[in-house]
Amino acid sequence: MHALGTHLLVELRNCNSKLLNDLKKVEEILVAAAKEAHATVIESRFHKFSPFGISGVVVIAESHLTIHTWPEYGYAAVDIFTCGEVLKPETAANYLIDKFQSKSPSIVEVKRGMLSRENRLPHKPLKNATPEDDRSKELQMVS
Amino acid sequence: MHALGTHLLVELRNCNSKLLNDLKKVEEILVAAAKEAHATVIESRFHKFSPFGISGVVVIAESHLTIHTWPEYGYAAVDIFTCGEVLKPETAANYLIDKFQSKSPSIVEVKRGMLSRENRLPHKPLKNATPEDDRSKELQMVS
Repeated sequence: MHALGTHLLVELRNCNSKLLNDLKKVEEILVAAAKEAHATVIESRFHKFSPFGISGVVVIAESHLTIHTWPEYGYAAVDIFTCGEVLKPETAANYLIDKFQSKSPSIVEVKRGMLSRENRLPHKPLKNATPEDDRSKELQMVS
Repeated sequence: MHALGTHLLVELRNCNSKLLNDLKKVEEILVAAAKEAHATVIESRFHKFSPFGISGVVVIAESHLTIHTWPEYGYAAVDIFTCGEVLKPETAANYLIDKFQSKSPSIVEVKRGMLSRENRLPHKPLKNATPEDDRSKELQMVS
């Protein structure tokens, strides 16, 4: 079975709460995490809410990273969604665990877009795929 | 156990491929799905890639919706992440299944930010919580 996307659901518990409520820092860390995984950052959008909490997304050519923080609980929910074989989403996850100083993190990996053999495109022999065949390498943003 | 967020992982298989490659339509449908679930839309960001595929995010006060489409496979990966008890993310999921004409969709619900009793904030007795206590109702975007 081949999957089109790899999706990490990252639970960051017992983090540095002060960091989780710092809009500039949270954005810096998430963008840096994307770059650590060798993602191509297209744009990032971050918002702070009152009284607590930050929501943000980093749009990458290979999909996205999102974060929602609950500083009052020392918790952040992170998603790292990538396509292609080149990126290493777990590198981004470990970077975030380290930077937010999460003392009890967990990561669940979900394969998205599982294709059965008959659904594969005949002109893309996945068995012999090289990194150059990856969607992420083929993609060019057009709008 | 109480969860801070509800996260639906929606696999839209066997969709209308033409729709999945139409930037304007995909954005319209995703924003409409957010509104169907009574979410407060803050902004939406959508990008089209060459030769195929669209990535998009709808930032809502209550978290986010994202989509990545593979028109060549008739497939889209959707995530609907909400907090609070007021929103009905499954309404958004069903709307998307309908609009993208997915013939074999699936939905997995993941509870995010599960809190053990000792981690709950003492000034927020969840047992007696009313919708007004929800984070989503408390939140006001400040930046």
